[in-house]
Amino acid sequence: MTPEEFRTAGHRIVDWIADYRARVATLPVMAQVEPGGVRRQLPVDPPIDPESFDAILNDLDRIVMPGLSHWQHPRFFGYFPSNGLLSSVLGDYVSTGLGVLGLAWQSSPALTEVEEVVTDWLRRMVGLSDTWSGVIQDTASTSALIALICARERSTDYSLARGGLQSLPQRLVVYVSAHSHSSIDKAALLAGFGRDHVRHVPHDAEYALRPEALQEMIERDRRDGLLPCAIVATTGTTTSTAFDPIEKIAAVAGREKLWLHVDAAMAGSAMILPECRPLWQGVERADSLVVNVHKWLGVAFDCSIYLVRDPVHLVRVMSTNPSYLQTAADTQVKNYRDWGIPLGRRFRALKLWFLIREQGVAALQARLRRDLANAQWLAAAVAARQNWRVLAPVKLQTVCVRHDVAGLDGEALDRHTQDWAARLNRSGFTYVTPAVLDGRWMVRASIGAEHTERADVEALWNRMVSEAER
Amino acid sequence: MTPEEFRTAGHRIVDWIADYRARVATLPVMAQVEPGGVRRQLPVDPPIDPESFDAILNDLDRIVMPGLSHWQHPRFFGYFPSNGLLSSVLGDYVSTGLGVLGLAWQSSPALTEVEEVVTDWLRRMVGLSDTWSGVIQDTASTSALIALICARERSTDYSLARGGLQSLPQRLVVYVSAHSHSSIDKAALLAGFGRDHVRHVPHDAEYALRPEALQEMIERDRRDGLLPCAIVATTGTTTSTAFDPIEKIAAVAGREKLWLHVDAAMAGSAMILPECRPLWQGVERADSLVVNVHKWLGVAFDCSIYLVRDPVHLVRVMSTNPSYLQTAADTQVKNYRDWGIPLGRRFRALKLWFLIREQGVAALQARLRRDLANAQWLAAAVAARQNWRVLAPVKLQTVCVRHDVAGLDGEALDRHTQDWAARLNRSGFTYVTPAVLDGRWMVRASIGAEHTERADVEALWNRMVSEAER
Repeated sequence: MTPEEFRTAGHRIVDWIADYRARVATLPVMAQVEPGGVRRQLPVDPPIDPESFDAILNDLDRIVMPGLSHWQHPRFFGYFPSNGLLSSVLGDYVSTGLGVLGLAWQSSPALTEVEEVVTDWLRRMVGLSDTWSGVIQDTASTSALIALICARERSTDYSLARGGLQSLPQRLVVYVSAHSHSSIDKAALLAGFGRDHVRHVPHDAEYALRPEALQEMIERDRRDGLLPCAIVATTGTTTSTAFDPIEKIAAVAGREKLWLHVDAAMAGSAMILPECRPLWQGVERADSLVVNVHKWLGVAFDCSIYLVRDPVHLVRVMSTNPSYLQTAADTQVKNYRDWGIPLGRRFRALKLWFLIREQGVAALQARLRRDLANAQWLAAAVAARQNWRVLAPVKLQTVCVRHDVAGLDGEALDRHTQDWAARLNRSGFTYVTPAVLDGRWMVRASIGAEHTERADVEALWNRMVSEAER
Repeated sequence: MTPEEFRTAGHRIVDWIADYRARVATLPVMAQVEPGGVRRQLPVDPPIDPESFDAILNDLDRIVMPGLSHWQHPRFFGYFPSNGLLSSVLGDYVSTGLGVLGLAWQSSPALTEVEEVVTDWLRRMVGLSDTWSGVIQDTASTSALIALICARERSTDYSLARGGLQSLPQRLVVYVSAHSHSSIDKAALLAGFGRDHVRHVPHDAEYALRPEALQEMIERDRRDGLLPCAIVATTGTTTSTAFDPIEKIAAVAGREKLWLHVDAAMAGSAMILPECRPLWQGVERADSLVVNVHKWLGVAFDCSIYLVRDPVHLVRVMSTNPSYLQTAADTQVKNYRDWGIPLGRRFRALKLWFLIREQGVAALQARLRRDLANAQWLAAAVAARQNWRVLAPVKLQTVCVRHDVAGLDGEALDRHTQDWAARLNRSGFTYVTPAVLDGRWMVRASIGAEHTERADVEALWNRMVSEAER
């Protein structure tokens, strides 16, 4: 494809995306296909000869589109908001079109330096001090793995340079909450700690980690000859957007000399609102922190901001320095390859840069405040209706609800919940995520898609009522 | 930004990229900026109010562009070809514009199923049997980490479900070559093995791992009470594109029951040429394999194809199954979140799908054959000129050269080599990567950018001669 052919085809793609975004509200939110329904329409063998761009676009419309669930739909209330605002999309278009790679600063200096600047913008936007340094990772799962590996290496004085986890005098232990994201347990297992050395600290009635229980567990493990290593606290849990008490947890971590990683993947975006910052009071005392700006804030996926207090430690754990990556500038610059797992690096900073500049901080704040108000409205509507309950405090934009039916409890109630949620999702009208809270299924409505207005939340609520009460 | 504003701005971005690609050959290949030169032109604080799209584009031209090294330049001979062919760029534009996420099959079924199909196309294209299953990872660094974690878990019967690496009766050992990529050592250290348990197997005169030395090392470790766990062999090393003898290494791995990971990040693309496949003879006996189609093949970064023989094992190591990710379809579909580290997933399959369809396999093959011939031409030119040497066999598209000067050896020769390479790169005319081979600096020319023709290689050679011999 020549640049001129790209110009023509690219305009068609831009129009196609513009049309898609303009009409996305008219599409069924959840894909209406059966397993295998897309795959069986595609040929088993790759084409030997070129196909026309028309043929590709035609298959995109005919085969791919019916197989999509639409995350940018204004009635998408599933999982979490994964907004890709259109200015951010254009920043990513520039990155992909340039096709430059950041292996070392020298291999494309602007790629590194714009990332330094925009991760620092984000730090300022969420009100963190200048003792933090940021880098873009792909996801919070990866950030958690990096954090726990860094914790492991700090506790063992860089055992990776010697016998690794295989030759330690004491076994390391990681403390998480039962409401931590699944990726936290996964990170601990991948980092080699082993499930026997991952403690699930009990939570309180609001699903927040109990610092006293944490303290007791640490003491018990020390008595048993183990070496407490790291705590992962969550600012906005996945199931109910609960907030672990960071200040008290940080006090334990400081006293006991444990690494504290704060998972603010979802709720970190809310910290651009000064009125939300009490929710992560104490965060300045953490060692590492992750904010997924590809969620609620609106950066096209993937863009997970990983912030650390001690970048020298991070680089010491992650660095490699083969001759073919050395350059004369190395002593004066950041080489982000030593801040994470992959060597290759996209120019992801552009999509954050475009978003913040095109929106401005004030508009981002206004959108998030709209969503907070919509969540409060929904919670009030649910609480006001007979047989409906809000199951967890609505501190942000997620509302956990259940519809009770006289005479139904236990598994029968679970079946009722799952049935009405499945009908809701299958209808294509809206999309929610069922999840388990306190051992029973409930339905989460995660509010915050870019174009979700009050009317959409009202429509969700009306439909929930009609599906559950029918 | 509304869809209509996006339409207008998007057309401008497409034109901007089309113009960039059309004129990239006229730009200096290596950025001509000093450290900090980009950063200090950007404001320290994010904007509170929106800025115009003109202002953003203006800064892109004025601040970012001079700070780029141009990987799509026809005289880019650095590191490795990182081609982003324009049809692949458009596939990525669709992905970013759609803004859909693959957390589970249900969260966007086509995202999963197109990935199943195109990773299988790639498997067929490189001539692998249907016993392999593929998934897209970001980079070969991540793929290596996943491979070594899977090896660790197979050797220990899933120690992650118990005490991890911290409670094993025997210490695990990983075998790599001194010419393995730096990311392999890094992966072993991140996975917790420890540097004391990473063996660098000696190589032969052509920089290929010696299977007999491997066998001896394994036997010695067993005598010492250690547990040999994994071998990483490389198909096309970074420094000299050497090929470890996979068949013999696989025989050792099979006999000794070690995991065999084959790093074909760079050279895997060459296996779309049947005449190159003898170079990885025996690969069918490996356990895992990585081919970075974002390198020479031409998919916009990032798109690293990780292929495994036992996907059930991979899923058992990587899986998480919290309630909020469970769906009714789970027993009938692939959930790629359990095939790697991140939970979130872009629709990266589209950029591979677009590329293969727009190009067709035959055109991809023709381009790679052009590059192989150009490398042979350069090697012959170097060998024919007095005082110039080709330092390693040219089996693919990388040529390692040194210019000798009468009376210069040791560090003085190193200084000469680094000086002329630095002059070459600073000139902006072309870009090469100096590296160390057998303890001495030399210059690598990695041929294979999409628009590199014979004339560009001739121009490179003429400029090398004039800079080194001046």
